[in-house]
Amino acid sequence: MLATSLFSLLDFSGVAAGAFGGALEAKRHPTYKFDFVGVLGLAMISALGGGVARDILIQHGPPLALLDVRYLLVALTGGLVGLLAKLPAGSPLGKLLLVVDAAALGLFAVAGATRALDAGLFFLPALLLGITTAVGGGSLRDVFSGRAPRIFERGELHAIVALLAALVFLVAQQAGLNRTLATSLGLATGFTGRILALRFRWRTKAAG
Amino acid sequence: MLATSLFSLLDFSGVAAGAFGGALEAKRHPTYKFDFVGVLGLAMISALGGGVARDILIQHGPPLALLDVRYLLVALTGGLVGLLAKLPAGSPLGKLLLVVDAAALGLFAVAGATRALDAGLFFLPALLLGITTAVGGGSLRDVFSGRAPRIFERGELHAIVALLAALVFLVAQQAGLNRTLATSLGLATGFTGRILALRFRWRTKAAG
Amino acid sequence: MLATSLFSLLDFSGVAAGAFGGALEAKRHPTYKFDFVGVLGLAMISALGGGVARDILIQHGPPLALLDVRYLLVALTGGLVGLLAKLPAGSPLGKLLLVVDAAALGLFAVAGATRALDAGLFFLPALLLGITTAVGGGSLRDVFSGRAPRIFERGELHAIVALLAALVFLVAQQAGLNRTLATSLGLATGFTGRILALRFRWRTKAAG
Repeated sequence: MLATSLFSLLDFSGVAAGAFGGALEAKRHPTYKFDFVGVLGLAMISALGGGVARDILIQHGPPLALLDVRYLLVALTGGLVGLLAKLPAGSPLGKLLLVVDAAALGLFAVAGATRALDAGLFFLPALLLGITTAVGGGSLRDVFSGRAPRIFERGELHAIVALLAALVFLVAQQAGLNRTLATSLGLATGFTGRILALRFRWRTKAAG
Repeated sequence: MLATSLFSLLDFSGVAAGAFGGALEAKRHPTYKFDFVGVLGLAMISALGGGVARDILIQHGPPLALLDVRYLLVALTGGLVGLLAKLPAGSPLGKLLLVVDAAALGLFAVAGATRALDAGLFFLPALLLGITTAVGGGSLRDVFSGRAPRIFERGELHAIVALLAALVFLVAQQAGLNRTLATSLGLATGFTGRILALRFRWRTKAAG
Repeated sequence: MLATSLFSLLDFSGVAAGAFGGALEAKRHPTYKFDFVGVLGLAMISALGGGVARDILIQHGPPLALLDVRYLLVALTGGLVGLLAKLPAGSPLGKLLLVVDAAALGLFAVAGATRALDAGLFFLPALLLGITTAVGGGSLRDVFSGRAPRIFERGELHAIVALLAALVFLVAQQAGLNRTLATSLGLATGFTGRILALRFRWRTKAAG
């Protein structure tokens, strides 16, 4: 019960942070001059695009973000704050955002895998849908900004950390752990992995 | 009955105009040299993409554009005419197109909100899906032309006018007006808003 | 029975070839430096994107690629081989790939039309979904690489060959031929058309 509330709080914090970050990205786009429609649109795509893509792929009813109106409200609010805010480089809020993002990355990956399992899909598709949920929003924002997804280029290991978080969750579930514990393990994996990747500036190399 | 026929006529006119305009856009693309496949493909995405995106998001059965074959036929015809036509700047047909587009913008927004309500969604998601229906086709055409949606940049208030049309419709419905009247009010709002925005060259400013 | 096994073998060969080709494309992208996440991601989009787009449009349950885990495994394997392989220009493997691709183009077009018919859609939407299945993966890969679909530009007649293959299949079905025969005719049309287009360097011209 407490765990559910905590997961829910973290989920909405992740959506808000995603929208806020998406709005900031959109405002400082190098080539396009987005107006407030573009900033809010890209903020909502950043925040909700991963979960919506997952739900469209699962085909198990309308996306959660359209059924539970809190998602739209939280994303809109996060986007509006990002539209109006100025965030100086190295500000404490910027660091807080990185922490929320790190926690949300793991949670989104686990939540995506959970919904895939609940819709009757198997291990490997559930893993893929966990990654999609976690990195899909940012990827769609990039495509709707006229570029390839950044996670395909350098990514600071976003996709790999999301994969690890979903993997730990799925293995823990299959090993018989209860869902709260499995979720917590996945979440901890995602958070730790992301913070370590940031701290030690882990990067992937270009292929080919 | 008469109103339904009128709405339907306007709907298909909007689809034809969208396809025609999409084909012209594709032919004069600044960097890509599209062949007839590209011109027709982008014409169909322009004309039908908004409704298809809405129906995929609602997950309430296959998109209308695949169930009612008239949509494909009208879009194909509009695209073919656009492929073959030459439209000199300032021609009377160009002005007619703007008027049809203005009427279709409001109708598409209202139709999108209507389908969302019929699928059991609430006010705010219905509003968002109304906007998606109205501006989704043009946005997807832009993304499939390798750029960010133009409505994110300057938009000549397309998204805001679509929002107002869907909003007036939804409020009128909730106030107890019957659907034909509510639809007409939404449509009138969209048409007037779009024409005023064109007439007075209303523009949004870049954010940030 | 034998025919079904043959079609299935060809289907998976097409998925593997699509993933392999997608990975090679991603590695030698002119502007982006994709890492292994990007190469594998674009490989999977190339291989499975067309079928997934079709299944999302049909809205007849989750995409085949998520239900039958062999699709993910084959696409991942093809992508991994493409990630690690070097393919010198004019190598025999390159020629084999072209042949597999030519066979897969027709099969994907026919398979897409088949699934559309089975979902209760009519001739014209089934035709469109056949084309979507055949050329959708490459198109989505292009969009997720920040550009317009190449089949919109020059295409070496990909879309037209896919259209012909689906058309021959659909007409044969309507003429009362059994499905195996109709499928074989569509497949042969696609294969022959693609090989002829390559052999004689048939190209479309820019429109407008």
